[in-house]
Amino acid sequence: MIKDRVRTDAYREAIMLHQKFIEGKVVMDVGCGTGILSVFCARAGAKRVYAVDASEIATQASEIVKANNLADKIIVIHGRVEDVDVEEKVDVIISEWMGYMLLYESMLPSVLFARDKWLKPGGLILPSHATLFMAPITNSDRYEGSVDFWCDVYGINMSALVPLAKKFASEEPSIEIVGGENVISWPFVVKHIDCYTFTVEEFKSITTTYKVSSMMLESCSNLSSDSSPLDIIQKKRRRASDSTVVLSTAPEDEPTHWHQTILYFPDPIGVTQDQIIEGSVTITPSEENPRCLNIHLECSTGGQNLVKDFAMR
Amino acid sequence: MIKDRVRTDAYREAIMLHQKFIEGKVVMDVGCGTGILSVFCARAGAKRVYAVDASEIATQASEIVKANNLADKIIVIHGRVEDVDVEEKVDVIISEWMGYMLLYESMLPSVLFARDKWLKPGGLILPSHATLFMAPITNSDRYEGSVDFWCDVYGINMSALVPLAKKFASEEPSIEIVGGENVISWPFVVKHIDCYTFTVEEFKSITTTYKVSSMMLESCSNLSSDSSPLDIIQKKRRRASDSTVVLSTAPEDEPTHWHQTILYFPDPIGVTQDQIIEGSVTITPSEENPRCLNIHLECSTGGQNLVKDFAMR
Repeated sequence: MIKDRVRTDAYREAIMLHQKFIEGKVVMDVGCGTGILSVFCARAGAKRVYAVDASEIATQASEIVKANNLADKIIVIHGRVEDVDVEEKVDVIISEWMGYMLLYESMLPSVLFARDKWLKPGGLILPSHATLFMAPITNSDRYEGSVDFWCDVYGINMSALVPLAKKFASEEPSIEIVGGENVISWPFVVKHIDCYTFTVEEFKSITTTYKVSSMMLESCSNLSSDSSPLDIIQKKRRRASDSTVVLSTAPEDEPTHWHQTILYFPDPIGVTQDQIIEGSVTITPSEENPRCLNIHLECSTGGQNLVKDFAMR
Repeated sequence: MIKDRVRTDAYREAIMLHQKFIEGKVVMDVGCGTGILSVFCARAGAKRVYAVDASEIATQASEIVKANNLADKIIVIHGRVEDVDVEEKVDVIISEWMGYMLLYESMLPSVLFARDKWLKPGGLILPSHATLFMAPITNSDRYEGSVDFWCDVYGINMSALVPLAKKFASEEPSIEIVGGENVISWPFVVKHIDCYTFTVEEFKSITTTYKVSSMMLESCSNLSSDSSPLDIIQKKRRRASDSTVVLSTAPEDEPTHWHQTILYFPDPIGVTQDQIIEGSVTITPSEENPRCLNIHLECSTGGQNLVKDFAMR
C-alpha cells in the first residue's frame, strides 16, 4: 500500500505542514505497518515515536528503523494498541486507519481507543477528519456485459443463467475504479467523522437519508438521452489536516488503492435529467465480526422503490 | 468463461469441422458447465448428447437445454462422469478440460476415464491433442516494481522488506498476461498429450529437460543491450482437431482467460544474446489434492545454477 503515492504523499505533506507542532514531541503511530509514517514523523523532528502494530510486520518495521538510524527515536511495539503500555502520554496520534468504503476493516476503533487513553489534551490527530460520500453512478457496461449477455450467447438462449449472474453481480459491494464522468449527481454525505470527538458508540449505526437530483453528463457513455442505469457509489474524502491537505478517493480524482465501492442493484434504474433520487443508507458493523459491514440501502426514484442489503465480509 | 471468445470460437469451429462425423452420432460432454458445447453438438446434428457435470451448474444447463428446444436431444446428467451410467457407448467425447498451465485443476483424468469406459473404437475426441510449452521471458517491470522499489521508498531504506517481497513474489506461479515481445527464446515442449493414448499413469510425473538460446528481441522494453531478467513462462497450445483448429494460449496470440503462467525466480537472471539457458522441469500432481500441482524447476545459464520449487494450490 506504500505504492499508493496519493496516499503516502498526502500523509507526508500533512506531517510537514504540522512540523512545528511535531518537533520535539511524542508521537504514537497506530497500526504502523512498515513504519513509514513513523519515519516521516521522526524526520520531521519528533522526539520519540511509538510505532505500534499487532501484525508480524512489526519485525520488518524494527529492521527498517535500524537501517535508517532511527532506533534512538522510534520504538516499535509488536502488539495491539489496546494492550500497549508506554511510560508517557503522547502529543500526536497518527494512523492510516481507513478501509474500503472508509469503514470496512478500518482501525478507527483502535485510533479512538488510543486517543482516549494516550493523547494529551490539546494533542494533534492525523487525520483530523474523514467524510464518507455517496453518489448515484451510471455503469451501463456492467449490465450489458454481465446480464443481457446471457440472453443470446452464440445464438443460444442462456437466460437461465441471468438470476445466477445477477446474484453474483450484486450480493457484495464491488470494489472498482470509477471515473468522475460516471457520477450522475452531486454526492451526499453519509457520515462526517471528527476524529477528536467521534465515539465507538456512534460507529455502531451510521444512517442518513439522501435526496439528490440527477444531472446527465455529456461525457457519460452508453446512455440514451432520457435514461441511465443507476447504482450507488461511495465517494470518500479525508482531510489530513484542517482544510489544507486532503486525501480524496473521489472518482474525479487520481485513483488510490481504495478504488471506489459500488453497491449494485440487480437491475439498472432509468433516470431522466433532473429526476429526484432519494432514500436512505444505513451502515452497521457485523455482529459476528465488527470489522465487516452490513449496508442497508433504500432508493426511490421515478415511481420505483428499491431496498437492498449488502454484506461486506 | 463463455465470455472467452477465443476459446468458445475454437470449439465451435472444431465441431463444425467434424460436422459430418458428428451428424446422427452420440456425444458425451465431460464437465459440460452451462452446456454450450452440447448445444453446439446438437445443432451440428448429433442424435443424442450426454451432458455431464458434477457441479450445481447442471441445473442451469437443463434449463438452457429446454429454453433452446433441445430437450429431446441433450440429456443433462448431474453427477461425476466416473459415476455416470448411460445405456450406450458414445461416438464422440468433447470436453473443455484444460486449466491454468494446461494441467492445473484440469479435468483430464475424467476425460481419460470417460474415453476408456464409454468411447466406441474409432470414436472422436475433441480436443485430440494438447501441448504444454515453456519459454524464458523478460519481465523487468515486475522486479523494478516489487523488489528494487523497497531500497529507496521516499528516501527511506526499506530493504528489510525485500525478503518478504521476494517470498510473496515467487512462492506460487503467477497468472498474468504476457506479450509475445517478452519471450526471449523459442519455446520448448514440456509435454505433448495425445488424448487418444495418454494415460493417468503418465500424468503422475511429467518431466523434461530443455536447452534454449536467448534471442534479444528489439521490442523488449527495459532491457540494457547485454542483459535481461529471466523467468520461465508456460505457453500452451491445444489442437481442437488435427492441424486445423488450434486454440493457442501463447503470448503472441490473443489473450484467453487462461492468461500465461509464470514461474518467477526470486531474482532476475541476466542473459546476453545467444546465451544458452538449460535445465529441467518436473510437474507432479500434489499428493494431498491431485488437482493441484508441484513444479520443480532447474535452470543453468551463464555459470549460475538455480533450483526452485513451486506449488500451485
